[in-house]
Amino acid sequence: MIQTKGIAALKAKEALVPYSFERRDPKEHDVVIDIKYSGICHSDIHMTRDEWGFGSPFPMVPGHEIAGVVRTVGSKVTKYKVGDRVGVGCMVDSCRECAHCKEEMEQYCIPGNTLTYGSLERDGSGITQGGYSDVIVVNEDFVLRIPDNLSLETAAPLLCAGITTYSPLNHWKTGPGKKVAVMGLGGLGHMAVKLAKAMGAEVTVLSQTANKKEDAIKLGADRFLHTKLKEVFKENALSFDLIINTVSSADLNMADYFGLLKLDGTLVSVGAPDKPLSLHPFPLLMMRRNFAGSAIGSIKETQEMLDFCGKHNITPEIELIEPSQVNEAYARVLKSDVRYRFVIDMGKI
Amino acid sequence: MIQTKGIAALKAKEALVPYSFERRDPKEHDVVIDIKYSGICHSDIHMTRDEWGFGSPFPMVPGHEIAGVVRTVGSKVTKYKVGDRVGVGCMVDSCRECAHCKEEMEQYCIPGNTLTYGSLERDGSGITQGGYSDVIVVNEDFVLRIPDNLSLETAAPLLCAGITTYSPLNHWKTGPGKKVAVMGLGGLGHMAVKLAKAMGAEVTVLSQTANKKEDAIKLGADRFLHTKLKEVFKENALSFDLIINTVSSADLNMADYFGLLKLDGTLVSVGAPDKPLSLHPFPLLMMRRNFAGSAIGSIKETQEMLDFCGKHNITPEIELIEPSQVNEAYARVLKSDVRYRFVIDMGKI
Repeated sequence: MIQTKGIAALKAKEALVPYSFERRDPKEHDVVIDIKYSGICHSDIHMTRDEWGFGSPFPMVPGHEIAGVVRTVGSKVTKYKVGDRVGVGCMVDSCRECAHCKEEMEQYCIPGNTLTYGSLERDGSGITQGGYSDVIVVNEDFVLRIPDNLSLETAAPLLCAGITTYSPLNHWKTGPGKKVAVMGLGGLGHMAVKLAKAMGAEVTVLSQTANKKEDAIKLGADRFLHTKLKEVFKENALSFDLIINTVSSADLNMADYFGLLKLDGTLVSVGAPDKPLSLHPFPLLMMRRNFAGSAIGSIKETQEMLDFCGKHNITPEIELIEPSQVNEAYARVLKSDVRYRFVIDMGKI
Repeated sequence: MIQTKGIAALKAKEALVPYSFERRDPKEHDVVIDIKYSGICHSDIHMTRDEWGFGSPFPMVPGHEIAGVVRTVGSKVTKYKVGDRVGVGCMVDSCRECAHCKEEMEQYCIPGNTLTYGSLERDGSGITQGGYSDVIVVNEDFVLRIPDNLSLETAAPLLCAGITTYSPLNHWKTGPGKKVAVMGLGGLGHMAVKLAKAMGAEVTVLSQTANKKEDAIKLGADRFLHTKLKEVFKENALSFDLIINTVSSADLNMADYFGLLKLDGTLVSVGAPDKPLSLHPFPLLMMRRNFAGSAIGSIKETQEMLDFCGKHNITPEIELIEPSQVNEAYARVLKSDVRYRFVIDMGKI
C-alpha cells in the first residue's frame, strides 16, 4: 500500500483537517502520480457538505482538478512513463461496456462512472479519494497528458472547469460567426470566455455584478451586459446562438435569458442548482429554442481540450494557496471572493 | 364589403353566439374562400376565455383550422383559381421583411405574424376574424392547397394540429431507426402518432389514461406506456430520441419524462401551460438532454405536410358537428371527451 497525506472532511459540513490514508499498490494498468497541484471546485464544497443529497461517504478527500508527475507505472502501462506531466479530472473509471462507454463518452456511462472521490471502486475495494493529497493511483485510461508549455498549477483547473465549458462549446459548434454568451464570471465562466474566444466566437459576458466588466474585457470578452438592468434583455433579444449558464442558482428568471437566444439557439446549464427552476416554456416555443444540460466531457475530449489550451496558451487565472488555507478558501468561494480559481500547492502538505 | 355569417364570443368567457360581420373586399393578391369546415382547437377555448393574458379583442370569431373552396380571386392572384380546394391555418400574414420571414419561417416572424383571428391587420384596418364563419379573405401567400384525395372535413385539422406536430417531427429528423414518444393522445397527440409512424419511426404513446391503449395501437403506435405507473419511467429510461409533449399541463414531473430520453435526446413542448413548470436541470445535465419548444410551422412546411398527408393518406379522426353545437363541443373538449377533433360543418351556418 502507498502511504498518502491528504486533507479530508471527516464528517459532512465539518472543517477539513489533515488526514493520512493508504492508496492501493499499482495494478498492471495503473499510473502512480505525485500530485503537485489540486484545484478547488465549487462542487468540492457541495460534496463535503453533502448538499446534493447523494449521501456522501466520509472521511472524504475532495479534489478532481489534479496535476502532477508520474512516480511509477504498472507493468502493462503503455500510455505513460515515469516523469510524465499528467492530470486527472472528475472520473477515474467507468463500466467500459455500455453503449456510451463504447462510443468514448464515459462521462455519460449508463451505470455511472467512478468519480475521482466519493465513489465506490468498481471492484468494491473501497471509496475513491481525491486530489487534496500527495499521491494518487489511477488507471492509465483515465489519465491525461498536460502539454509542455502549460504550467502544472494553471493546468490543474482545466481538468474540471476547462472541460466542463469546452465540451458544450465544442458540442454546440462554437466557432467564427457564432455569438456566444456566458452567464456568470467565476471559475467556469472565465474559462468559457477564454475558450469561446479562442474558438473564434464573438463572446459576451452576462453578469449581475457590474464591476466584473473590466475583468470580462481583459479576459477577452467582446461585450459585457449587466443583467441587473432589465432593459438589457429587451435590447439584446434574439442575439445569441449559444448561452453557457455557469450560474448554479434557481433564482434566475430563465425566460429573460431564453429571450436572448436566436431562433434555434441553445442555453446550456453546466451546473445544477439545489432546487428546481421555475420555467415557463413559452419563450422556448416562440423561437424553437432549446434548454440543455452538459456534464464535464469525455476522456478523449479532455485530452483534445488540453491540447487546444496548449496550442492557444490558454490557462485559468488562479490564486495559489497552501494546504492549511483550504477552509479559508472555501469560505471565500462561497462569497464569490476568488478571481478565478484557488489551486492548492500540494507539495507543501 | 363581404357580408359574413359567423359564431363569436362577444366577451371573454361568454358562450359563443351567431354573429354577422363584414370582410374586406379582395385586394389584388387576396383569395376569397367559401369556408366549408372549421376545426376546434383547444387554443380557441383559451383565446375566447382570454386565458393567456394577451388581452384578446372581442367580439372574437375563433377558428384557425379552415378548409374550403375558392369563391373569387384578386386581380393579381397567380397561385389559386376559382374552385380550388384550399386551407388556412394559424396565420394570415407576417412582416415579410425580418430575417425569419426572408428565410420562409413566418411562424417565427420577429415583429410577430398576423394570427388568423384576434390580431390587428398589418395595415391597421381592423382585427382579424377566424374560421367559425362562412367566408374568409386571405392573401394568397398564406393560403394552402389541399390534396385531391383528402376530404375537406378531415383536412381542416391538419392546418393546426397537423402542422404543429409535423414541424417538430420533421425538424428533429424523425425517420426509420428513430424512437419517438408522444405525450398525450388528444387532437395533437393522435396526429403526432400517425405522422411519426408514416415517417418510419417506432412510435410509443405515453398517457395517463390506461384505456387509451387500444386507440393508440389502432392509430398506429407500436407501444403504449401508462404513465400513472411509476415503474414505467425506470423500465424505459434512455429509450427515446424524441418526445413530443402535447400535454399543456404544468403538473407533470418533467424529470420523469427527461429520464426517458436517450443521450442527446430532445423533449419538445408544442403547447404552453398557463403557469410555469417546476423543472430540475439535473436529468438534462446527466445525459446532455434538450428541452425545446416548437410553434406551428412555416407556410412552406405546412404545404409539405399537406402533401405528405395526401401521399400517405393521413387524416385526423374527427367528430363532425353543426355550428349550433359549438358551446357543447367546447365543454366536451375541456373534459377531454373528444376522439379526436371536433370539426364544424360551416355549410350549415
